[in-house]
Amino acid sequence: MNRFMDLADLSREEVVDLLALAQRLQDRPEPRALAGRILGLLFLNPSLRTLSSMQAGMARLGGQSFVITPGSGTWQLETRLGATMDGGAAEHIREGIPVLASYCDALGIRAFADGRDLEADLDESSFKAMAALCDKPLINLESAMNHPCQALADWKTLDDLDVPRRGRFVLSWVNHPRALPLAVPAATLHMAAHRGMDVVVLRPEGYALPRRLMDKARAAAEASGGSLTETSDRAGALAGAQVVYAKEWGSPAHYGDAGADGALRRELADWMVREDWFRHAGHDCRFMHCLPVRRNVAVADEVLDGPRSVVRHEAFNRMVVQMAVLHRLLAR
Amino acid sequence: MNRFMDLADLSREEVVDLLALAQRLQDRPEPRALAGRILGLLFLNPSLRTLSSMQAGMARLGGQSFVITPGSGTWQLETRLGATMDGGAAEHIREGIPVLASYCDALGIRAFADGRDLEADLDESSFKAMAALCDKPLINLESAMNHPCQALADWKTLDDLDVPRRGRFVLSWVNHPRALPLAVPAATLHMAAHRGMDVVVLRPEGYALPRRLMDKARAAAEASGGSLTETSDRAGALAGAQVVYAKEWGSPAHYGDAGADGALRRELADWMVREDWFRHAGHDCRFMHCLPVRRNVAVADEVLDGPRSVVRHEAFNRMVVQMAVLHRLLAR
Amino acid sequence: MNRFMDLADLSREEVVDLLALAQRLQDRPEPRALAGRILGLLFLNPSLRTLSSMQAGMARLGGQSFVITPGSGTWQLETRLGATMDGGAAEHIREGIPVLASYCDALGIRAFADGRDLEADLDESSFKAMAALCDKPLINLESAMNHPCQALADWKTLDDLDVPRRGRFVLSWVNHPRALPLAVPAATLHMAAHRGMDVVVLRPEGYALPRRLMDKARAAAEASGGSLTETSDRAGALAGAQVVYAKEWGSPAHYGDAGADGALRRELADWMVREDWFRHAGHDCRFMHCLPVRRNVAVADEVLDGPRSVVRHEAFNRMVVQMAVLHRLLAR
Repeated sequence: MNRFMDLADLSREEVVDLLALAQRLQDRPEPRALAGRILGLLFLNPSLRTLSSMQAGMARLGGQSFVITPGSGTWQLETRLGATMDGGAAEHIREGIPVLASYCDALGIRAFADGRDLEADLDESSFKAMAALCDKPLINLESAMNHPCQALADWKTLDDLDVPRRGRFVLSWVNHPRALPLAVPAATLHMAAHRGMDVVVLRPEGYALPRRLMDKARAAAEASGGSLTETSDRAGALAGAQVVYAKEWGSPAHYGDAGADGALRRELADWMVREDWFRHAGHDCRFMHCLPVRRNVAVADEVLDGPRSVVRHEAFNRMVVQMAVLHRLLAR
Repeated sequence: MNRFMDLADLSREEVVDLLALAQRLQDRPEPRALAGRILGLLFLNPSLRTLSSMQAGMARLGGQSFVITPGSGTWQLETRLGATMDGGAAEHIREGIPVLASYCDALGIRAFADGRDLEADLDESSFKAMAALCDKPLINLESAMNHPCQALADWKTLDDLDVPRRGRFVLSWVNHPRALPLAVPAATLHMAAHRGMDVVVLRPEGYALPRRLMDKARAAAEASGGSLTETSDRAGALAGAQVVYAKEWGSPAHYGDAGADGALRRELADWMVREDWFRHAGHDCRFMHCLPVRRNVAVADEVLDGPRSVVRHEAFNRMVVQMAVLHRLLAR
Repeated sequence: MNRFMDLADLSREEVVDLLALAQRLQDRPEPRALAGRILGLLFLNPSLRTLSSMQAGMARLGGQSFVITPGSGTWQLETRLGATMDGGAAEHIREGIPVLASYCDALGIRAFADGRDLEADLDESSFKAMAALCDKPLINLESAMNHPCQALADWKTLDDLDVPRRGRFVLSWVNHPRALPLAVPAATLHMAAHRGMDVVVLRPEGYALPRRLMDKARAAAEASGGSLTETSDRAGALAGAQVVYAKEWGSPAHYGDAGADGALRRELADWMVREDWFRHAGHDCRFMHCLPVRRNVAVADEVLDGPRSVVRHEAFNRMVVQMAVLHRLLAR
């Protein structure tokens, strides 16, 4: 493995193998496995879990890391090809990425969606441009339409909790003060389908996920023996659910139009997960969320603080699975 | 020892033991004592000494650390229970703290006073809420009313300089452009009393420390054979002093009211420590300050650059004593 | 070697020795050479390459580092002697520098020119004040008029590429949206002269470098058997060039006067390096730049993406030579 860009690049068996490595490292630590190895971390967007879990995971394997955060301690990076750089950005990714890559043994990059042009974001045009400039092992720390570290951690969480492979997995849109990117819903949807689950996307009108994301997940479901449907009927979706995975996202129908998205979500304040959502859910139905989560806007305290929430377990697994990724990319 | 939250949690003998460990690590370094151990550092407020001395100290013991600074590279954290999170904070401490704790072997947290409700700050309500969410060894890197790392470093500095246990220790209010928190005066007052010194709080009218802080220190003084008094009579306070410890703080009488505090301190510009403050002080009277200090506002250059200033020694001891704390919390 | 402040402090032979050490560490890594050693990094200005290459280089030698960035996670530092600190800066370098130095085994400091008083900046008054406060090995990570790590990396790049010692080295002014400091032109000019090259400074009227910088470089050229001339005749300067080193800088004639400098450069948009600049240059003429570079303002894409550009090689050599500096300063 030379890059960890998209869980879809790995077959179901390769994911299972990678998770077995994660479990092995958890059970039998290898504190010198990456001694002398350097991880570069480029954060074009804020982070709490990803930053700390990557640094802690690298250190637990004996390696070290450095962090570059454009706009805070370093300048903004230009990404547009052919740009006349007379604005705010002092350096182009065509210099910045290869230079950072040359200092480290593996590079992690976080670069959220531009949020203006849906097709360009679906194409992962920015992230692909950066990836093409990196000649070292590369880790996607969240791109426009992907978050494979989160997806892998969530898969492990499902395994840890013995959620049946064929269980009913409901990815539900939830409310948020503003439009958020599609990266986590895209990655989660595909992950659950890739694992072979019966996946239901539950969302209000106007928040249907782009067809390309649905098609990709549907293909994964078909290959794994799972299924994928979508609905705006909450009661129907939640009946018999074994997992409710809540996520906020902006309206793909009004991509980049904060006003139209805002008008739409003004009526959607009841899309906040409460305990009564689980009335007809399966026995022991789990609640998942990638964090950060806005309490009492997206999810009520009663759910996050209740026994069905596994959000901390998911977050802990971020470090666990990333150690496996780092080990796979860097161990000699 | 599982937490380092307040010097008052340790008996006088336990403090002496901890300082002996600090001295031992200084004399006989243990560069692999914490190999493979990870320290998480959460800074909700700015830092120079604490950040660098914690990272350097951890590294000198063979461990590694990571740093999270909400508002710079990560989002703001909400602390209020039951909050409807539709404002600036994207994550609640109820998720953030346990997640960070799960990645590290010990967590250090800096969280200054909210500065609005004196009783809530005296209760350490924010810090206690965070501490309750952390299931790993925890270090208080300055809370609303405490700064035990500073207090321990200052105790060691007094020992290093052979300041007599029963010496006269004057904690003096000094001027500053604006109201600062009570954490260091509270911690310093208690430390000197706990060490058994004759402690005098010197402050202008309006800046008397809250009774709860005074009562806590008085109890420590009684247990250690020291004493505690307060006064606004500068000449009387300074006569025979063996230590003058300068500190800026906001008026407890006008807590959270910047206007009233500002009006009060407008007349107090002469509360800047100058060399003539020491005219009737004891032979070899030392000058202490926790830093950062505003030169020629709180303390004149002539004092900071003169032979009685031990502020750099205090700062160096921050690293020395924190290494002992880390060793006690984390060494196998 | 106890400080790395200015390449002019080293004889030509000492530079050659240091570069030999850099090459040796590149060929035969010493991953434990600086085990247990701590590098402090104080960045008063932004950085991408310097920050990441210093951290990665230190880690590759087995050491660790910490980073302090005033204004981002810590407060601003006051540098003026005797200042009444009632403004934005909460700490003076007279405390800050010795304290940071006391925590680490070597300290690196980046502090750009104040940009108001040319003579004070030429005197390196700020950096010298900071250096005087540091009792540990010290590395200049770019000061008002110097950038010795860049100069050393560029020297190694010239050697790596077999650019003849006596080759024609053209340092050319190029356009930029605003006035930039003189540190890199000063360091580059001197480096090329020190290496013994035939150095030509090519710049428009109004951008002649200060006499003190020229005199220093001329003395180095004379000692090394090279030469130094300056001109505003682009065609004449570039004829036969073996290296074109592009750099942006503010008008020394209008130092600190953004308006006058802006008026002057309004007419200078054609001072952007394009491929046609090399029409009469030497066979295989190289293009160099220290980065970051504003594409299509200072240098056209066609040059940066073309075969003569060695800017990434220069940037990689930053880490390589800094490892030699760290080794020389810190290895036991």
